Amino acid sequence: MNLWFTEKQTKAFGITAKVKNVLHTETTPFQQLDMIETEEFGNMLLLDGMVMTSERDEFVYHEMIAHVPLFTHPHPKKVLVVGGGDGGTVKQVLKHPSVEKVVQVEIDAKVVEYSKMFLPEIASAYDDDRAELIIGDGFMHILNSENEYDIILIDSTEPVGPAANLFTKGFYAGIFKALKEDGIFVAQTDNPWFKADLIRNAIKDTREYFSVTRLYTCNIPTYPSGMWTFTLGSKRHDPIAVSKDTITDVDSSYYTADIHHASFVLPKFVQDLL
Amino acid sequence: MNLWFTEKQTKAFGITAKVKNVLHTETTPFQQLDMIETEEFGNMLLLDGMVMTSERDEFVYHEMIAHVPLFTHPHPKKVLVVGGGDGGTVKQVLKHPSVEKVVQVEIDAKVVEYSKMFLPEIASAYDDDRAELIIGDGFMHILNSENEYDIILIDSTEPVGPAANLFTKGFYAGIFKALKEDGIFVAQTDNPWFKADLIRNAIKDTREYFSVTRLYTCNIPTYPSGMWTFTLGSKRHDPIAVSKDTITDVDSSYYTADIHHASFVLPKFVQDLL
Repeated sequence: MNLWFTEKQTKAFGITAKVKNVLHTETTPFQQLDMIETEEFGNMLLLDGMVMTSERDEFVYHEMIAHVPLFTHPHPKKVLVVGGGDGGTVKQVLKHPSVEKVVQVEIDAKVVEYSKMFLPEIASAYDDDRAELIIGDGFMHILNSENEYDIILIDSTEPVGPAANLFTKGFYAGIFKALKEDGIFVAQTDNPWFKADLIRNAIKDTREYFSVTRLYTCNIPTYPSGMWTFTLGSKRHDPIAVSKDTITDVDSSYYTADIHHASFVLPKFVQDLL
Repeated sequence: MNLWFTEKQTKAFGITAKVKNVLHTETTPFQQLDMIETEEFGNMLLLDGMVMTSERDEFVYHEMIAHVPLFTHPHPKKVLVVGGGDGGTVKQVLKHPSVEKVVQVEIDAKVVEYSKMFLPEIASAYDDDRAELIIGDGFMHILNSENEYDIILIDSTEPVGPAANLFTKGFYAGIFKALKEDGIFVAQTDNPWFKADLIRNAIKDTREYFSVTRLYTCNIPTYPSGMWTFTLGSKRHDPIAVSKDTITDVDSSYYTADIHHASFVLPKFVQDLL
């Protein structure tokens, strides 16, 4: 059978991938969950029809959301991950020996369940003693936390469906409160070609609370436009002031000490958004 | 009509774009030429079914192929462009006041004709007195040139169809001979996710002739994987040794002095290709 999956990344543009097998498909209480085996990118997790991660290119997103803040903070011990049910972000966080505890709050248990089944490499860190998984609302968890985390990573879907509460102003205030006095947060903030307003707003809201606000990018071939952005807010430590010498060797395929710094250099049309 | 154009960028992956109008379609002596009006990227030129350029994102490719070598060379006067019938590369080259002459050798007159008609902004530089357009074989033009150009830009399609002679070892030897004693060339060399071998070979062949061999990248949303590479070979001047002060303001939307340098910082899996 000549089977193709298509994601309309905008109303008028998208990607299409040849599918070997539909591994699982289910409407969870929160979203449509599909797991497909593609020829080009291996097994792929879709939520509400959008590519979340794939075996072949997952390393870019997960390394970049984790290593940039974790090498910016001088001694990250306690980390919170909101979303990220595939486990890839937790896996990268746990590569840092200073980390004593990673709390992950994922709203949809089914994402974890099927990631363990069909993305076992990505989900491998769930067995680590330092990882605690809470099935619940990340927004509420943050509102109930105070002065608790060194790092908070918002590894959410787009601000629709179960992630609708994220990317609001109250959310940034909550993150500020939940972080320790020299804490850092990073949120994925989509792409500058199709979602310029989302980035502009995330930067504006972050600036209201955090003295250090930065945007950085990476290349993810299965995500809209291939250029992905992360917004970083920090109470004290500046990611672009990090000395390359303090970035130790970490097992990676995308992140390096030089990429850490180059990822903050923005094309002119992206710079102009800020 | 709900009309969509799809390009299979690999056998099992591609992009799809909603089409407002098919503006022109023709089989030229060299290739299939289609001009379509898309909703997301404006007018778009396709050759043999592959996206060559679009009104909305053309600036990235054309700025990056031109400004990086032209700001690396201290006094570029004479420039050769092979291919690039849409005119976008010539337009960026002519933004450099030191340039006295740009010779462009495009094999397919129809590409120029329909770019002038449907991509007038991109093709606007053809009216410039410093631009000379030759309809002919760029490979032969290079083989017949000696010690003539400061800069050579290979703005070709993939090494299939009319561009089959490009990306061969004899071609690099020819470029070396056609360049002056401190000349620089840049060739577009596709993307590292799907065409790793092409990049590996281009770098290897370039190294055989040029003491300075570098790879740099940019983000182009309508090109495979969203990450595009350029291979640069230089007889003397090193693009990463260029002082930011010597990069003067140029009217751009992607290129900046900081992007010049950051574009040479490669993700680890790309670095490993070299």
